[in-house]
Amino acid sequence: MSFLTHLECPKCGAAYDPSQVVNLCACGSPLLARYDLERLARAVTKEDLVGRRADLWRYWEFLPLERKENIVSLGEGFTPILRAPNLGRELRLKHLYIKDEGLNPTGTFKARGAAVGVSKAKELGIKKIALPTAGNAGGAWSAFGVKAGMEMIIAMPQDAPDLAKKECIVTGATTYLVEGLISDAGQIIARGVKEYGWFEASTLKEPYRIEGKKTMGLEIAEQFNWELPDAVLYPTGGGVGIIGIWKALNELKEIGWIEGPMPKLISVQAEGCAPIVKAFAEGKKESEFWHGARTIAGGIRVPKALGDFLVLEAVYSTKGTAVSVSDAEIMEALKLVARTEGMFICPEGAATVAAAKKLRDSGFLGEDERVVLLNTGSGLKYPELVEIRLPIIKGLQGA
Amino acid sequence: MSFLTHLECPKCGAAYDPSQVVNLCACGSPLLARYDLERLARAVTKEDLVGRRADLWRYWEFLPLERKENIVSLGEGFTPILRAPNLGRELRLKHLYIKDEGLNPTGTFKARGAAVGVSKAKELGIKKIALPTAGNAGGAWSAFGVKAGMEMIIAMPQDAPDLAKKECIVTGATTYLVEGLISDAGQIIARGVKEYGWFEASTLKEPYRIEGKKTMGLEIAEQFNWELPDAVLYPTGGGVGIIGIWKALNELKEIGWIEGPMPKLISVQAEGCAPIVKAFAEGKKESEFWHGARTIAGGIRVPKALGDFLVLEAVYSTKGTAVSVSDAEIMEALKLVARTEGMFICPEGAATVAAAKKLRDSGFLGEDERVVLLNTGSGLKYPELVEIRLPIIKGLQGA
Repeated sequence: MSFLTHLECPKCGAAYDPSQVVNLCACGSPLLARYDLERLARAVTKEDLVGRRADLWRYWEFLPLERKENIVSLGEGFTPILRAPNLGRELRLKHLYIKDEGLNPTGTFKARGAAVGVSKAKELGIKKIALPTAGNAGGAWSAFGVKAGMEMIIAMPQDAPDLAKKECIVTGATTYLVEGLISDAGQIIARGVKEYGWFEASTLKEPYRIEGKKTMGLEIAEQFNWELPDAVLYPTGGGVGIIGIWKALNELKEIGWIEGPMPKLISVQAEGCAPIVKAFAEGKKESEFWHGARTIAGGIRVPKALGDFLVLEAVYSTKGTAVSVSDAEIMEALKLVARTEGMFICPEGAATVAAAKKLRDSGFLGEDERVVLLNTGSGLKYPELVEIRLPIIKGLQGA
Repeated sequence: MSFLTHLECPKCGAAYDPSQVVNLCACGSPLLARYDLERLARAVTKEDLVGRRADLWRYWEFLPLERKENIVSLGEGFTPILRAPNLGRELRLKHLYIKDEGLNPTGTFKARGAAVGVSKAKELGIKKIALPTAGNAGGAWSAFGVKAGMEMIIAMPQDAPDLAKKECIVTGATTYLVEGLISDAGQIIARGVKEYGWFEASTLKEPYRIEGKKTMGLEIAEQFNWELPDAVLYPTGGGVGIIGIWKALNELKEIGWIEGPMPKLISVQAEGCAPIVKAFAEGKKESEFWHGARTIAGGIRVPKALGDFLVLEAVYSTKGTAVSVSDAEIMEALKLVARTEGMFICPEGAATVAAAKKLRDSGFLGEDERVVLLNTGSGLKYPELVEIRLPIIKGLQGA
C-alpha cells in the first residue's frame, strides 16, 4: 500500500533501502523517509480523506507501511484543534488555537511516533525494541510494542515523572532508571544495543517515528481546510515534531494540496535548556550541548538534539523564530490555560503559551494572525505540578 | 437546530418544557429528553454523518441544543472501538472490542455528559453549577464549566483520587472534600442548592448529562457500521451510561437506522457495592441502598442510583445480565489488559474484563459473539494502582 521509495540522508544525500532495518546514515545523520509523491498525488485527493478513520492512519498514503495488517493502533492522532477565545483575549490574539495532543493514547503526542515506529518495526520483523526516554515516549512505545507482541526495554532518568514509569511497568516493559538525563539513558541503551542486539528506537536514530509525528502537520493542514495558519508554536526537546510538521507541509506543497507561505514554525524551549534558541540567536546551523540542563518541563530537557540542524532549518526557512521561557512563566501559563479554557495541559504545552505571550508583546505575532499552540500532552501526566489544599466537610449524617 | 420537544417522566409520564430550567419530575423521578424523531428521520440520514466532525457533536440532531453557538467543546467523544485480539485469546472471545473512553478530554467518559450538560446549561442562562462526584465527573464538569465562564462548585469524598481533586483545583472550581461517600457529598450539595440557588447537576437530577452519555450508543452503532454487536458490558455506578446507550439504541431503532435484536446490555459492579446485581438476582425493579460500600473502583462505588429502575429495565429488556467482580479480579484484569493490549485502563473498565471472563466461563457469552467492553477512563487517573520498584543504574559518565 505504500508510496515509500527510500530512506535519504539530509546531510550527505546517501540513499538506503527501506525494506532493510536501518538506523542512522553511515555519516551519522538521521535518515528521512522519501515517497514517490508524483504517484501519490495521482492516487489520492484531499476529498478522498473525508469520512476516513478518525486517527492518523487516515493518511496511510503518506506513511511508510507496505501492508495494512501491520498497523498497530490504539486510536492515535486526529486530535482536535480547539479554539481558545478566552486565552486569546488574555494574550491579545484574536485567532488562537490549541491542538490538544493530550487526547492521544498514553496521553501525549508520543503515541504518534510510537504507533508508526512500532508498526513499521513489526513489518520489518523486529522483536525487541530499546529506547531511552524522558518519560512519555517510554510509556507510548511500551504500549504499542506490547500490543504488537514485542519485548520492550526502556531507560529513563531516575527523576522522570512517576506516571511514565508506571505506564512502562504496567505494560510489562523492562524498565531501568538512570542517574542523570535522557542523554545518560541513551548511553545505557546504546551499550545494550551493542551487547544484546536490541533494535534501537532512540529519537531520530530510527527513521519512522518522525513519520508518525509528521501527521500533526497533515492534520493542521486538513483541519484548517488546507488554508494554513500563520504560526505554529512547538515545544522543542528532540525536535521530531517540528521537523515532522515541516516535512509534512513540504510534502503537501509538493503535491499541490497547499499553497502560499508556510506558517512560521516557532521553536519554544525552557530557559534552563535552550540549545536551539542559543543557536538561532547566533545564526548557527547546529546547536551545542547544553550543560546543566534544568526545567520542570522534562520533555524539553534535551541538551543536544540529534536533529538540531533540521529544527533550525525548519525555523529559518519558514521565517519562524526560537524563544525560551522560564519555569515560573511555564507554571503561570499552565494555570492561565486551565482557568480560561478548562484545559489541564502539560508544562511543555504551557511553554508555548508563555512564548506566545512574549512574541505578542514583542510584536513578532500580530493580533490578527492565526496562531496554533501545540499542547503535546495532558496535564494528567504531571500531577506533581498541582498541590491539594482543600477544606474537609463532615458528612451531614455525622452532624 | 434541535429536534427536542419536551422532557418526559419515565415513571408518571408528566411532560416538562425544555426551555425552562428543570431538575427532577414532581414525582421525584429523573426526566428524559424526548425528540421529534419523525421529523429528525426526514432531516438526516446515516450517510449524512460521514465526514462530520470527529466528536460527539457529529450527532447534533440527537442532542438537545437549540443553537450551535452554545456548544462548549474540548474534543469529546467519537472515541475508538479497538479490536482486542490478544485479550480475546486469553478470554476465549474471538471478537472482542474495547471502546476506549480514556481518549476523552479529562481522561474519562464523564466528558460526554459534562459537554452536553454544560452546553445546555449555557443555553438556559445558568451561571453557577454545583455537583457531587466520586471524582471524575468533577474534573470533567469543572473543565467544561470553566471554559463556559461559569462558577463551579464541586463536592467529592475525601478519599477520591488525587488527580480528580487536582483537575478541579487547577481549573479554579470551588472544591470541597466530604467525609464519606458520593451520597454524603450529594447531601452537602443539596443543602447548598437550597441555600444559595446553585443549579444542581447531580447524576440524573439534571436531564442532559444522559444525552451526552447517549452518544456512546450512537457511536457503537455507527462504528459497527449499523450492525450491532451481541453484548455490551458497562461498569455501573450511577448508571447514566448504560441508560444512555439503551436510549440511543431505542431512538435509532425508532427511526429505522438499526434493526434486529438489541445487544445484551450487561451491568457490571464490584462485589463490595452491587445493588443492581442484587436487585437483578432477585428479579426486582429497583435496588436497595447498599450499606458499607467498598471497592477500589471508585466510579462504581454508588450505594443507590437514582436511575436504578432504568438500568434494570435496560438489562431486562435486552436479555442482558448483571454481574459483580471482586477487587482482586479487577486488579488482575487491569494488568492482563496492559500486558496483552498495551492499554492502561481504569479499574472500572477492568471490572468489565473480569466480568467478561466470568460470563464466558459460565457460557452466558459465546466464543463467536461480538462483545464490546466499555473502558470508561484512562488508567492515568489511577496512578496509585501501580507501584514503582525499579533498578537504578549509574550513568556511564559517572562510571
